[in-house]
Amino acid sequence: MAEKETTRTEAFSDGIFAIAITLLILDLRAPEAGTSAELWRKLGQLWPGYVAYLMSFTIIGIMWMNHHLIFRHIQRVDYRLTMYNVLLMLTIAFLPFPTGVLAHNIADPGTCTAATVFYSATMLLTSIPYSCVWLHAVKADLVEGDPAAVTTVLAFFAPLTAIIVIGLSSLYWLIFPAWRRQR
Amino acid sequence: MAEKETTRTEAFSDGIFAIAITLLILDLRAPEAGTSAELWRKLGQLWPGYVAYLMSFTIIGIMWMNHHLIFRHIQRVDYRLTMYNVLLMLTIAFLPFPTGVLAHNIADPGTCTAATVFYSATMLLTSIPYSCVWLHAVKADLVEGDPAAVTTVLAFFAPLTAIIVIGLSSLYWLIFPAWRRQR
Amino acid sequence: MAEKETTRTEAFSDGIFAIAITLLILDLRAPEAGTSAELWRKLGQLWPGYVAYLMSFTIIGIMWMNHHLIFRHIQRVDYRLTMYNVLLMLTIAFLPFPTGVLAHNIADPGTCTAATVFYSATMLLTSIPYSCVWLHAVKADLVEGDPAAVTTVLAFFAPLTAIIVIGLSSLYWLIFPAWRRQR
Amino acid sequence: MAEKETTRTEAFSDGIFAIAITLLILDLRAPEAGTSAELWRKLGQLWPGYVAYLMSFTIIGIMWMNHHLIFRHIQRVDYRLTMYNVLLMLTIAFLPFPTGVLAHNIADPGTCTAATVFYSATMLLTSIPYSCVWLHAVKADLVEGDPAAVTTVLAFFAPLTAIIVIGLSSLYWLIFPAWRRQR
Repeated sequence: MAEKETTRTEAFSDGIFAIAITLLILDLRAPEAGTSAELWRKLGQLWPGYVAYLMSFTIIGIMWMNHHLIFRHIQRVDYRLTMYNVLLMLTIAFLPFPTGVLAHNIADPGTCTAATVFYSATMLLTSIPYSCVWLHAVKADLVEGDPAAVTTVLAFFAPLTAIIVIGLSSLYWLIFPAWRRQR
Repeated sequence: MAEKETTRTEAFSDGIFAIAITLLILDLRAPEAGTSAELWRKLGQLWPGYVAYLMSFTIIGIMWMNHHLIFRHIQRVDYRLTMYNVLLMLTIAFLPFPTGVLAHNIADPGTCTAATVFYSATMLLTSIPYSCVWLHAVKADLVEGDPAAVTTVLAFFAPLTAIIVIGLSSLYWLIFPAWRRQR
Repeated sequence: MAEKETTRTEAFSDGIFAIAITLLILDLRAPEAGTSAELWRKLGQLWPGYVAYLMSFTIIGIMWMNHHLIFRHIQRVDYRLTMYNVLLMLTIAFLPFPTGVLAHNIADPGTCTAATVFYSATMLLTSIPYSCVWLHAVKADLVEGDPAAVTTVLAFFAPLTAIIVIGLSSLYWLIFPAWRRQR
Repeated sequence: MAEKETTRTEAFSDGIFAIAITLLILDLRAPEAGTSAELWRKLGQLWPGYVAYLMSFTIIGIMWMNHHLIFRHIQRVDYRLTMYNVLLMLTIAFLPFPTGVLAHNIADPGTCTAATVFYSATMLLTSIPYSCVWLHAVKADLVEGDPAAVTTVLAFFAPLTAIIVIGLSSLYWLIFPAWRRQR
């Protein structure tokens, strides 16, 4: 029975991860152009959309890999774990929205600060239910093997996401002003 | 054979739950803004969309958890159970529409009554095929263990949804008029 | 190995069925209204969308149930069966488009004939790869048990879909002219 | 444990394949028309959308079949294989965008060259992470049976995609100029 429970929680989660990650592309719309040269230029001008897509896909992809990793150690689910996992899914399914906000504003010097803060804040928000899932699983003894050894896995996760968000943001702040001056 | 049947009915249901719950976010569109301050204000003005998203995600999430719960006790599926489950999915997949209606009208004093009634009505509609799934499963002896013990699970479900819908609606009616006067 | 193959073909098919059936709702957009009375009236005027949603959900739901039914008897998959199944999915994933065409034109006396013919034609088109899947499975001996007994299942499917399409269309042609005169 | 890992990686991949392939249809929008004759004509004028849908569905379908094929031989997953697979999914989930670009420009003599090149380039891009998945699986000994025998499978894949893309493009270049002159 326990086995079956985990399977279904994982299937539901995988579905939401897969859909949230695929919906990101809906923000990219085919541009209108009269000539091939103009189409290439307009495809190039969509770079904020590509950046937002790549960043969000990478981050959601890492989240999925970590979800995958901790559920390999979780052997049973109880009501609270399911509830924390639904909360985690609530934040994951929300991510296409801040991604769209970022894509629309990353190239606009007037609004990119607010958009980046909003985006990073929602990304960090996902770590709360994620930690709840893991901490409850360890506390309620739903985990097989030595939890201490696995906890390092979790410790690894949050900083990694943070480093990527901050790293990419920094990279952006280094490159963008120079690029803008050239335009 | 029986095992395989349940697996696939659950997989199909999980898919629809996951997609319906993720499509809710498509109603939230990135706002246009000239400055960071304006973007923050516009992101704040989208609160009806956040409320509708949170409410619908919570309700569909609870529905999924209960679907999960009763299918743990259902060991086999027959043609009628599959049919009732498809009907349940028909109502679940419909939910992004009333959610959108609610999000567009919750902040409008002129239309929020109709939108809330329409939203609550479609939410309550889902309980009809849900009850059919469970009652047929018990009647046709597709359930393992003591049905009486599990029936309490079902009895728990409908009121819970009702309490959440009514509770959130009440909360809204308490807060909203005061908030509107301040605007 | 054979078991695993069937599982994954079914999972992929279930995913496409679930998504195609859920995307149908995206054609229904929340109407703009100034008063509750106007919102109710506008929600009522969306009836062609509800009819198209209900019809397509019912038909795709029956298709899924039949896909489910024949794959219970298919024990192994080979390259051609996978290919026929991908072709079937190609027609299933196409269905949100004719559904949208039907929804936009069913209430327009000038275009409803073309829309209904286009809709019914694409629905009937799905039966070609569906028959290929089953006939190849029987011919290539991928089916367990007595194929003759199961063939009646298939014979049941095509007419059922046809009867529903024609039945609902007829119902529509009976009701619609009377309803239109009253408007 | 190892078995479970493969299952979940495949489920996540199947989800993304299924969603990417189904989202292709969202580019086709129901046309507005006043008469049945006009509706038929407008449905006919959407042929670039049908061509793009068919091509992309065929190509993504073949990719799924090949992903299915190589994962039948992969018995375990490690961190790098999961990462390469996430990268592959990143390119797969991106495909609805170039498909939309192709659909909007294939019938426009001024922009079809750029659109076809962009489309083919993104299609070929998917073969990089796909090869990484397979080569790493062979190198890290995650594959059961004789890798040499299976490698022919991979060798078969890339040219097949290339042949289809080039074949369809050529067909298009043969037919389109003649068709355009008649218009």
